Amino acid sequence: MKTMIWEDGVLKILDQTKLPETIEYIEAKDVETVADAIRRLSVRGAPAIGAAAAYGLVIGAKNIDETDKEKFMGEMEKVAYQLASTRPTAVNLRWAIDRMMNKVRKRDDIYIAGVRGELLEEAHKIYCEDLEANRQMGEHGQKLIPDNCRIITHCNAGALATAGFGTALGVIRAAHRAGKKIEVFADETRPLLQGARLTAWEMMQEDIPVTLITDNMSGYLMAQGKADMVIVGADRIASNGDVANKIGTYGLAVLAQAHDIPFYVAAPTSTLDMNLSSGNEIPIEERHENEVTTVGGTRVAPAGVKVWNPAFDVTPFELVSAIITERGVVEGQYQENLKKLMENEPQTSGVCSGQNPAK
Amino acid sequence: MKTMIWEDGVLKILDQTKLPETIEYIEAKDVETVADAIRRLSVRGAPAIGAAAAYGLVIGAKNIDETDKEKFMGEMEKVAYQLASTRPTAVNLRWAIDRMMNKVRKRDDIYIAGVRGELLEEAHKIYCEDLEANRQMGEHGQKLIPDNCRIITHCNAGALATAGFGTALGVIRAAHRAGKKIEVFADETRPLLQGARLTAWEMMQEDIPVTLITDNMSGYLMAQGKADMVIVGADRIASNGDVANKIGTYGLAVLAQAHDIPFYVAAPTSTLDMNLSSGNEIPIEERHENEVTTVGGTRVAPAGVKVWNPAFDVTPFELVSAIITERGVVEGQYQENLKKLMENEPQTSGVCSGQNPAK
Repeated sequence: MKTMIWEDGVLKILDQTKLPETIEYIEAKDVETVADAIRRLSVRGAPAIGAAAAYGLVIGAKNIDETDKEKFMGEMEKVAYQLASTRPTAVNLRWAIDRMMNKVRKRDDIYIAGVRGELLEEAHKIYCEDLEANRQMGEHGQKLIPDNCRIITHCNAGALATAGFGTALGVIRAAHRAGKKIEVFADETRPLLQGARLTAWEMMQEDIPVTLITDNMSGYLMAQGKADMVIVGADRIASNGDVANKIGTYGLAVLAQAHDIPFYVAAPTSTLDMNLSSGNEIPIEERHENEVTTVGGTRVAPAGVKVWNPAFDVTPFELVSAIITERGVVEGQYQENLKKLMENEPQTSGVCSGQNPAK
Repeated sequence: MKTMIWEDGVLKILDQTKLPETIEYIEAKDVETVADAIRRLSVRGAPAIGAAAAYGLVIGAKNIDETDKEKFMGEMEKVAYQLASTRPTAVNLRWAIDRMMNKVRKRDDIYIAGVRGELLEEAHKIYCEDLEANRQMGEHGQKLIPDNCRIITHCNAGALATAGFGTALGVIRAAHRAGKKIEVFADETRPLLQGARLTAWEMMQEDIPVTLITDNMSGYLMAQGKADMVIVGADRIASNGDVANKIGTYGLAVLAQAHDIPFYVAAPTSTLDMNLSSGNEIPIEERHENEVTTVGGTRVAPAGVKVWNPAFDVTPFELVSAIITERGVVEGQYQENLKKLMENEPQTSGVCSGQNPAK
């Protein structure tokens, strides 16, 4: 199941709000449709929204009917702003948009047709490199997983949250493929139930044993000695190792520490925001109260009730046992070690040529 | 809104599974209807199911068409077993049934008509004393609440979980009525959303400020310094102070300790099980997977997914700042202090005469 498909200049976005009951793609031919799909969480997960925004810029560039270089650039900046302002927390969105826009901004001798081609090539690279990064993360991360490991994961950091394979679930997949016996406990992840709807579904499709629990059961599971590890993804990681991820991650990290269970974060380096000194600087999106008060159209709370609905929380680095990236695993001393990690030249496998990987 | 009404030999049970959308009473004229209402959580909350079972025994005694003392007693024991086996965790159920049955078992010269009358009187006393206990708990407990206090509560330990007023919410109500400024954060409490459906509703009806959150938000709320206290109810408390309560309570207690926030448990002494040396001995009910995989009839997880659905967890006494009972507040040294508490003669206000308080 592909998160998104690029075909004939159209971005087909898997509508994850309808999973697992219905498999349906949204056909995006304009920027607003892409932006709306990101806002509505039809496409979600930090790496996936980065890739979707990259293709959104390709669509934007195609639809701007300008031959004047200055005017074209002005319109492109508007498109970039429109896509970047859909969601505030995941830095991959801004990272992908910046990377795309730099292709345009850095050219003095702009040929609009050429720029359009370069943007498409760059979007393909972003998508392809994410897929590669997930596979590499899987290889690095699976070494941390012993045989017969019972792993709690939160939200969906799977193939559906990325270009494919997944971050946290990529590590779990790699361990499974390496022949290790794994048992996954999927937090359902209220309010939008990505754990129940997406993670459980992904694991079942590959016959990786999975048990669904409500978010408030993790603590008791740990207390009973039934969990050996927590692995989650991330939406933004500050330079000190503080991790913003789906609401509930922080509570899980506190519980993991209280039970002496390792707490791992798997994320590509595109999730690292080296401009931020700590997680306090990460903007946390607050979403509509309807997400809490209704489930699948059914009202589950009194009309008019006040709701607090932050979509993410921040886990301080002290609670993070290791951060698994495509460039390697960082265990502690994050300030220093993440800096070193980013200074290393990325290993390129050479597979990402700019050909369409999203078909 | 009364949890149950006793009228003309019929127990009318408020069907809490339909709240807050629909207010509907189940008319129980036989024991199976009462047992089924307890099993299906139409009536829920440790003290409330104790009172409902007491009235269930009254109905049972009325419906046993026996004049022979031995046969009548045999049938009564069956009724007691039927009601006691509905739910395993809350000890109030067994406590109420034992108290009722002792009225019958201890009589050598049994006159069946007289027994029926005594049972009704005892059921009324159980109901009335619970209401009184909640009010006393409120008075004792509210002293622990400072002005401008922001309180997290879990599940519904309110009027709906008791004969009225509530345990944890009774303490909150008493503080509110004492003129203290209170803000309540209600965990929605998956899977059955008693926090969203019942606690938020109870608080709104009395204009006590309440904000609904999903269970996985409490940690982040505490980390942001937005919560000063946790108060919950209990389904069974062992003699060492270990507390069984709605699933998620344990995680909340770990989080409270990590943030240096007091964690209070409010429960009548009928919730104390002095026969158990620790919480390890408390049977924990596991309920049907449908409660997790569907919400209000909507499927929220893939068909066939494996689910773990414990209805309760156990919080070790080390995490409990105080236990608030109708006989006073116990802070620490639970083994010793709970024993002392139970040895004291209960203060009786004399208001529980055996007249119908549930009308």
